[in-house]
Amino acid sequence: MSALSDLITPAALIDEARMLRNISRMQDRMNALGVRLRPHVKTSKCVEVARRQSGQGAQGITVSTLREAECFFAAGFNDILYAACIPPNKIDRALALRRQGCNLTVIVDSVEAARALVASDHAFDVMIEIDSDGHRSGVRAGDRLLIDIARELTGGGANLKGVLTHAGSSYDLNAPETLEQLAEQERREIVAAAEQLRAAGFSCPEVSVGSTPTALSATHLPGITEVRAGVYVFFDLVMANVGVCTPENIALSVLTTVIGHQPEKGWVIVDAGWMAMSRDRGTAKQAHDYGYGAVCDVQGNIIEGYTVAAANQEHGIISRDSRSPDHDIAKRFPIGSLLRILPNHACATGAQHSCYHLVEGSGQISRWDRFNGW
Amino acid sequence: MSALSDLITPAALIDEARMLRNISRMQDRMNALGVRLRPHVKTSKCVEVARRQSGQGAQGITVSTLREAECFFAAGFNDILYAACIPPNKIDRALALRRQGCNLTVIVDSVEAARALVASDHAFDVMIEIDSDGHRSGVRAGDRLLIDIARELTGGGANLKGVLTHAGSSYDLNAPETLEQLAEQERREIVAAAEQLRAAGFSCPEVSVGSTPTALSATHLPGITEVRAGVYVFFDLVMANVGVCTPENIALSVLTTVIGHQPEKGWVIVDAGWMAMSRDRGTAKQAHDYGYGAVCDVQGNIIEGYTVAAANQEHGIISRDSRSPDHDIAKRFPIGSLLRILPNHACATGAQHSCYHLVEGSGQISRWDRFNGW
Repeated sequence: MSALSDLITPAALIDEARMLRNISRMQDRMNALGVRLRPHVKTSKCVEVARRQSGQGAQGITVSTLREAECFFAAGFNDILYAACIPPNKIDRALALRRQGCNLTVIVDSVEAARALVASDHAFDVMIEIDSDGHRSGVRAGDRLLIDIARELTGGGANLKGVLTHAGSSYDLNAPETLEQLAEQERREIVAAAEQLRAAGFSCPEVSVGSTPTALSATHLPGITEVRAGVYVFFDLVMANVGVCTPENIALSVLTTVIGHQPEKGWVIVDAGWMAMSRDRGTAKQAHDYGYGAVCDVQGNIIEGYTVAAANQEHGIISRDSRSPDHDIAKRFPIGSLLRILPNHACATGAQHSCYHLVEGSGQISRWDRFNGW
Repeated sequence: MSALSDLITPAALIDEARMLRNISRMQDRMNALGVRLRPHVKTSKCVEVARRQSGQGAQGITVSTLREAECFFAAGFNDILYAACIPPNKIDRALALRRQGCNLTVIVDSVEAARALVASDHAFDVMIEIDSDGHRSGVRAGDRLLIDIARELTGGGANLKGVLTHAGSSYDLNAPETLEQLAEQERREIVAAAEQLRAAGFSCPEVSVGSTPTALSATHLPGITEVRAGVYVFFDLVMANVGVCTPENIALSVLTTVIGHQPEKGWVIVDAGWMAMSRDRGTAKQAHDYGYGAVCDVQGNIIEGYTVAAANQEHGIISRDSRSPDHDIAKRFPIGSLLRILPNHACATGAQHSCYHLVEGSGQISRWDRFNGW
């Protein structure tokens, strides 16, 4: 494949140069902070992308589903952290991976889940999830439940590998100082949890934090052994609003074809609707609302002021942000012309596609498969 | 497969009895109105579902992508309407289908697209899209552009098959009288467009309307030959808020496993996040906001007042609607227990899955593949 015009639209594109810069930036930062980087591959679900991350120094991967664990293990990745609490009905699949030689670590945040795990009679590697910001799962540092879970695990023969947390509330911030404060809170809370375990006589070698915004905002990470982050590999408009990248850093876009116009309204109709962009409207509540995405020319240069203002399943409606419609829009974007759309949320937009088309600096295009499902 | 507990969660389920009732209801209504029903298969993207629709009397199918056209043609469907304006770069694929014997009809709403189509030197069957409610694409009845397009098509050797419209603004309504008014507007506008063409000497045998809400609200359809509708096959919470079904009619749900709790907040954490439910928050602006979905027990009975209030990629947070958190929630929904979640938008939720699990009245479960992509 040698030209974007040969692709069937809508199509997910990766700008290789931008992706490699994003990977370097995070890896350099983690190296400077003296911690390991364990990328979260839920963003790309693509073996080729993860190989680029490993190639620059990442150690191990984080997954959000057992299907990701299975696919990446089959592709040669061995050190895998499954970072969603494992329920009883998924233990057999995790065990099958362990028995095939996969160095799979699972997590729990309850005595019930710990009990089901040790009932398998297999010495799982387990981490306990810590709640460092109240946004979702995990045990609070200082809660005696943490000790109860550790006792259940080690008493049952599991290997307590450490603690992990994810300050997901970082997505709601947009100022460097509050991001730095949250990164420090994430660090402080999980280090306190690790100390609580150690004081009670448990070993806690691994102390794992992570979210793209806190990873890029932390200024020191004493007590932390590894950082997990996912979306940084592509970045997106939500992250641009959070303030940890610019729209020009975004490596993922959707190639689309103009299929019609409503000139009196200043609308261009394109073939990238929500099926191609996802229904994610993460920028709706942020400082800059990009609708369903920001419009770029076919080379990926942002066309200031134009967004996908509305979307149906296979139709996107592009219009100018301002209140004055662009009545020349049919001439500016003729039927059949190609555009690229930058996504609100790279994880969600990627999930709508079965493959990426890697666009190299030379203009060469390669197909990289991704997978979905559970 | 004989039990829901054998499925990997999250999993998309179809309640067969509900689906068959939904199909009958729409077919009976179209029969009574004296029009053909051409289901929009973009909702299910599943051959087995479409066969049930044909089996009850539907004639032909509507598709939103050429991939749907190719997959359904390969499965034996021949009468296919591709209901998104075809741009020049998709003509070759449409032509390939025609040459294989597929009775594919395409649509246009511009002279430019019509010109590209006739430049193929193939006598395509073409319909002109009419804009009956200003919500998206199409030519307004009375606009001389309609005649220009018809002239371009017929002058170039295409077969002008008729006109079609989609009153998509019906999704924003919720009262029977305004829905009935919009159905009449949809009918009136397209009949006017057909008359305009006929008065100018063009043949216009087909006059096609459709959206699930207007199809179920129209009381008479003189001048209309066929109705297109998609989401009625499953229904969803958006349609329940529009008022054309009840939550108990919804045939699609997502089976999920409880993976954790935050008892003091009254939260249950489940493994159905937005990856399983989609990011569609279509009920957010409606009378009843269901968050990311309404919670049912494993048999599909609604548990009043509980919704998936928040979602991350692979985590859903279930809580009670009221301001008083349910502190007994960990006992009510223990770790490992199964629930079903009804979707806001069946088209969007289905798209997150590669297959459905059909649950028959007997409890027997069958796997039905669906497809995505372009």
